[in-house]
Amino acid sequence: MTEIPAALGAEVRRDLTDAPFLAAARGATPSRTPVWFMRQAGRSLPEYREIRAGTNMLESCFDPALVCEVTAQPVRRHDVDAAILFSDIVVPLKAAGVGLDIVPGVGPVVDEPVRSAAQVDALPALDADQVAPVSEAIGLLLTELGTTPLIGFAGAPFTLASYLVEGGPSRNHERTKAMMFGAPEIWHRLMDRLTIDTITSLRAQLAAGVDAVQLFDSWAGTLTLADYREFVRPYTERVFAAVADAGVPRIHFGVGTGELLADMASVGTEVIGVDWRIPLDDAARRVGPGMVLQGNLDPATLFADAQTVADRADLVLAAADRARELGATGHIFNLGHGVLPDTDADAITRLVAHVHDR
Amino acid sequence: MTEIPAALGAEVRRDLTDAPFLAAARGATPSRTPVWFMRQAGRSLPEYREIRAGTNMLESCFDPALVCEVTAQPVRRHDVDAAILFSDIVVPLKAAGVGLDIVPGVGPVVDEPVRSAAQVDALPALDADQVAPVSEAIGLLLTELGTTPLIGFAGAPFTLASYLVEGGPSRNHERTKAMMFGAPEIWHRLMDRLTIDTITSLRAQLAAGVDAVQLFDSWAGTLTLADYREFVRPYTERVFAAVADAGVPRIHFGVGTGELLADMASVGTEVIGVDWRIPLDDAARRVGPGMVLQGNLDPATLFADAQTVADRADLVLAAADRARELGATGHIFNLGHGVLPDTDADAITRLVAHVHDR
Repeated sequence: MTEIPAALGAEVRRDLTDAPFLAAARGATPSRTPVWFMRQAGRSLPEYREIRAGTNMLESCFDPALVCEVTAQPVRRHDVDAAILFSDIVVPLKAAGVGLDIVPGVGPVVDEPVRSAAQVDALPALDADQVAPVSEAIGLLLTELGTTPLIGFAGAPFTLASYLVEGGPSRNHERTKAMMFGAPEIWHRLMDRLTIDTITSLRAQLAAGVDAVQLFDSWAGTLTLADYREFVRPYTERVFAAVADAGVPRIHFGVGTGELLADMASVGTEVIGVDWRIPLDDAARRVGPGMVLQGNLDPATLFADAQTVADRADLVLAAADRARELGATGHIFNLGHGVLPDTDADAITRLVAHVHDR
Repeated sequence: MTEIPAALGAEVRRDLTDAPFLAAARGATPSRTPVWFMRQAGRSLPEYREIRAGTNMLESCFDPALVCEVTAQPVRRHDVDAAILFSDIVVPLKAAGVGLDIVPGVGPVVDEPVRSAAQVDALPALDADQVAPVSEAIGLLLTELGTTPLIGFAGAPFTLASYLVEGGPSRNHERTKAMMFGAPEIWHRLMDRLTIDTITSLRAQLAAGVDAVQLFDSWAGTLTLADYREFVRPYTERVFAAVADAGVPRIHFGVGTGELLADMASVGTEVIGVDWRIPLDDAARRVGPGMVLQGNLDPATLFADAQTVADRADLVLAAADRARELGATGHIFNLGHGVLPDTDADAITRLVAHVHDR
């Protein structure tokens, strides 16, 4: 197994102290309100659809030059304040040797759903060598991006577990919850395994030089607070603790997680991503002082006219101002979820300019 | 247009004062904890799949004998304390002449999405005559069901609007929100039209003799509280006000609506349905005293073993007890959302017995 250096890429990582995204993320005053978008690299961009034409999604994630290009595309086009690595949360599983593919129009599909203790034990563990192409892509990006920070990411263990247990995307997570509630010993074993892979993946990205990391616990909002605390939160805490020594901003995000926000903000993260359903000042009240907030324009807003988008972005910015009065130490503008596939790329560019012009 | 009698079916409606569901719904003490399930009539039942084999979903909803049979099936099999009319929230639109169908595996698909003022104005209005087969089915059920109450229902205007504007089911409601945020005058016109249809549909069901009504605002949880208040709540209030004179319990439910619960409970409803994400005592705190709570076992729980289902049902019942201490005036056991299609019918039967044995 490859040794990951203890300094976690301190020798390769760029010094971008003045970058607005990083300034805001550490609670300093940025030169402008930083803005980036979850899923900014992807289907909403014509140049992305062109370069990806005829290629397989998962294979693309292991092609360093392609990853570099797709990651950089939204930075060039929109002037966003951060790039996020073009990848997928199942990449570490695929790299480790789990049989799965990303099926267009469906999402990740697992050859054999993982539902027994034996299947959990048979899951291959990720070795950092296996994500070397991702590290190589990060190396290319450190040059390509100039002074724009690069965000690495991973799926949180719960969200990864859901794909493995269901065998694919699920609206209701019935098999996952059946295991969680009915076979907690198998559940905890699976979460333990996935926690290690998540850590390996994030530490490899950090060693390669990413400037921040975001953990996506996309489905956490389908759980009650009590279940989140018992079955998910301890593993998320382990992930964040295991990357603390890199000294870069850590971001935590899930959809529909208003009820869980205080817990999700206190697992060892500097920045908490907020879904669009609650205003940022309300989020600040829930998480308490000292947190940087990221969000939270409803992604559907980008389907309205330019004036409406600007007006509603202003509401987000005003809520962020009120959040600061309540003790939030910064604001990174983002959507409250990922960019929707049919979003007009020009609407995104205009929104970035509007936030910057403020 | 058919005149609906002012007394709204008082002459046909059965006197079921002692039925546990109705006792609980009006804040009295039921002889046992009443339990029914959203989507209890449907795919989880082998006898349903048999009778529906080869038939069209929407045509089935206009076949009185079939509606009667399918509505009664879960009452016979599970011993639930209420029947809910087998229908679909788009039935009033179909009846009025809107071009749409329910496509298996997809959901309601509208021939021509409604996005302009002209299209809104061209929407046909529902006449109560057009849902006569539904009224006829209710007539059959009043005999068929004996002393089991029958719940009528409708989709709330916002949820109906989403189907019409998107043209079908949508995860993100981008066109609906684009209209809501960007063209509010068209939005309000559409909501006004749909409010009238919703009222016509519910009043026809009440005139035919249903014992309670539930309004499903399935997608309300995708809105912020501010948007809910501005764009949705006024119409929901009109719907509930327009059926108040029937004197039967009114139930209001939406998914993921913890943030909206106080508002959803104060639109003129006796019973508030609670999604599984927040415990019932938390719900009682949010809605204040004097409300009857309905819910809220996570439907995914039914995929676990029998003991796990029973244990988690007990957690719901214990939360309901705490809710009563906080001023809730009753509890109707239900899931926190509809029965999932692949649910084992026997697991549902066992759950009913467990709640009753308590």
